[in-house]
Amino acid sequence: MSTSHDGSPGVPAEGAAAAGSAPTPDAPARQGISRRGLLGLAGATVAGIGIGIGADRAVSAASGSASSPATRSYAFYGAHQAGIVTPAQDRLHFAAFDMAGDATRADLIELLQDWTVAAAAMTAGQDIGEFGAVGGNYDAPPSDTGEAQGLPASGLTITFGFGPSLFRGAADADRFGLAGKQPPALHPLPHFPGDMLDPAASDGDLCIQACADDPQVAVHAIRNLTRIAFGRASLRWSQLGFGRTSSTSTTQATPRNLFGFKDGTANVKAEETATVDKQIWVNSSDGPAWMSGGSYLVARRIRMTIETWDRTILREQEAVIGRTKGEGAPLSGGSEFTEPDFEATGRADQPLIAETAHVRLSHPTSNGGAAMLRRGYNFVDGNDELGRLNAGLFFLSYQRSPEQFITVQSQLAKNDALNEYIRHVGSALFAVPPGASQGGYIGEPLFA
Amino acid sequence: MSTSHDGSPGVPAEGAAAAGSAPTPDAPARQGISRRGLLGLAGATVAGIGIGIGADRAVSAASGSASSPATRSYAFYGAHQAGIVTPAQDRLHFAAFDMAGDATRADLIELLQDWTVAAAAMTAGQDIGEFGAVGGNYDAPPSDTGEAQGLPASGLTITFGFGPSLFRGAADADRFGLAGKQPPALHPLPHFPGDMLDPAASDGDLCIQACADDPQVAVHAIRNLTRIAFGRASLRWSQLGFGRTSSTSTTQATPRNLFGFKDGTANVKAEETATVDKQIWVNSSDGPAWMSGGSYLVARRIRMTIETWDRTILREQEAVIGRTKGEGAPLSGGSEFTEPDFEATGRADQPLIAETAHVRLSHPTSNGGAAMLRRGYNFVDGNDELGRLNAGLFFLSYQRSPEQFITVQSQLAKNDALNEYIRHVGSALFAVPPGASQGGYIGEPLFA
Repeated sequence: MSTSHDGSPGVPAEGAAAAGSAPTPDAPARQGISRRGLLGLAGATVAGIGIGIGADRAVSAASGSASSPATRSYAFYGAHQAGIVTPAQDRLHFAAFDMAGDATRADLIELLQDWTVAAAAMTAGQDIGEFGAVGGNYDAPPSDTGEAQGLPASGLTITFGFGPSLFRGAADADRFGLAGKQPPALHPLPHFPGDMLDPAASDGDLCIQACADDPQVAVHAIRNLTRIAFGRASLRWSQLGFGRTSSTSTTQATPRNLFGFKDGTANVKAEETATVDKQIWVNSSDGPAWMSGGSYLVARRIRMTIETWDRTILREQEAVIGRTKGEGAPLSGGSEFTEPDFEATGRADQPLIAETAHVRLSHPTSNGGAAMLRRGYNFVDGNDELGRLNAGLFFLSYQRSPEQFITVQSQLAKNDALNEYIRHVGSALFAVPPGASQGGYIGEPLFA
Repeated sequence: MSTSHDGSPGVPAEGAAAAGSAPTPDAPARQGISRRGLLGLAGATVAGIGIGIGADRAVSAASGSASSPATRSYAFYGAHQAGIVTPAQDRLHFAAFDMAGDATRADLIELLQDWTVAAAAMTAGQDIGEFGAVGGNYDAPPSDTGEAQGLPASGLTITFGFGPSLFRGAADADRFGLAGKQPPALHPLPHFPGDMLDPAASDGDLCIQACADDPQVAVHAIRNLTRIAFGRASLRWSQLGFGRTSSTSTTQATPRNLFGFKDGTANVKAEETATVDKQIWVNSSDGPAWMSGGSYLVARRIRMTIETWDRTILREQEAVIGRTKGEGAPLSGGSEFTEPDFEATGRADQPLIAETAHVRLSHPTSNGGAAMLRRGYNFVDGNDELGRLNAGLFFLSYQRSPEQFITVQSQLAKNDALNEYIRHVGSALFAVPPGASQGGYIGEPLFA
């Protein structure tokens, strides 16, 4: 047993809670990681270690948005979770978890407390505890896995969500005493026409979205949070993404998806605060109270049949999307940010933007005003046995209610010309609670 | 049918070769992509288009090494291929291809010519032909898939290699009249103890290594080169990597692998020109003549059982590697770049660097002076059904002879303490020809 730790300027270390003394809902929030969390970090063979959050990873990591992308860092604590309206970073590691079969409500709370402490440290550019030679404990596994040592915060955000099954498990089991707190809107998404979902890459009790400008930093975050969950929750599925497909800020250029088109031109942007308030954040009148300031996250793994797309003539590609491929301007005219004119007609009175064009069917005017903040990423996961790239879009959208997504996707699934070139193969819905306050933990109001 | 193309400042377009008039070995090198290559780009439904290399992707792409990583570009043509001693970029897309069953020698030459033209364009920050509205041909698929439009060269390098099976196929078939040109050293690697290779993720007739500082640029390159190969070669396996694990230049800090250790401290660096000449480049006395100025590339997919590693105590981790985890200093003392002292002993006359330590067994002094230039990347490809990350190191090394790798790996496979935590699951060896000269094509001396 060892309680050594270095005196680095991170969050102070704290003795681990005695075994069996599970935190109660109103226990004061802890600064350190629990004994269980440390066991996850250390492995089941080591008992009774006590290590706090340790060394700063990078001396230059500053709080708040800095000028250099690498040293940029975002505060973890706040009214809303970071990673939603935060300007979309370039890289993603997303993970869904299931609670262990024997996990209790206390385990869940403790896990969320541990994750909170660890996420606050990592987003500030710190490691999870010390590691390495200086002051290290050579007879325990290093608390931190180390691959992000020397790397700055890199704009890391870590965003947590709760799946429907956390509230109501198989056979409606109320495993964690949360059934009464389940938001009425938080139920598995309906089956949409064309869905070909892989259950093993769908759903989950919990999710973590780690976004950063350096993939090693995002991977490090998911890996270490997975270790901390040891014995309490385990990885169900995960997805890496390498290029954001939407801007979430007016300061960002619109990126391109793997169809080669600009994606997210009409996305809700952080700067549009009235729209964000109306479309993205759950407000106090929406209920339940614990979700106030939160949002709902839809994740869809969308495989693109890019080989077929690549053999489609340009005219057809543009007609399917409803925009030009180069500039991204609507086919009704103008430039990228010109509002599409869905009434405009051309030859033979045909609409310039086809009835089945993606831009028309996904537009708020076609969906009773419903919009969402998209935050998806391109992915390429090797290739299949026929030599086709296993590639596509890992779609992520935040909205005040899942109904916004359901409305739009119901339209798209039925009529979108793009359906010929895509296949939805994974799906999940999560309630994303509001941000934690310093000293509190993520999701705390759910357990009040 | 259309022959329209824009007058953009890329390589001039050229009329496609008449069908059936295969280029001969001494045909003058072409500047444009062949009819077959254009068919790959355009899809089998469109016949007889003629499009050259098109628009500059980014106005700021400069030739030669520039100061900004994004706008940095490396010349494709030269005595050696780029992507070997080039300072290792941060992202990788690697692909292995097999020639089509009915492909001829002329097809192979034509493919290499097409790939050369396309690679020279993309590494200069240009697209493969035009795309988009301005000057675009609306009745053909866009030549370029478009997802890198607007992105600078991002330090892209594209490096080609030839597998043993290109020279001698199944049942020793001399499909391309190359059997007499097969380098004596180019034979499938021997089976090493512990190898658990997946044939579907091993070997291949051809390989392309695309490295860039932006993954979208690397993915774009492999995707478009795959399209160009349509009907002549198809993707056999591919691998994305997200963090380089070795420095190849003294100007780079040593990165960390997923064991959290610095990797590549003792790597051969581009600046060590005498070592590079001795260990990396095939010289004229080595034979065969067409390989002079080339190198041999070993690719190994090494799965790391990181969950087991993460539960290993720090003392053991450091003993396995033979270096400290923090600084990366040899356990015999000093700092990162201090030469390990394998004779130094400590308590009970035990060597400070264990007999089975990775740093000892892989060191040139343990291998008759054999060294290699490593250029590997970390990878995480989701997780398995037990929630373990499918993660590891995609090992790439360049050497003057495959014997250098075989010598070192024979040592490691038998005795390396690290074997408890790794598993080699994919393997390939390629002959990497010298660089092409402007107007020539990659591998041209092989066909002389």
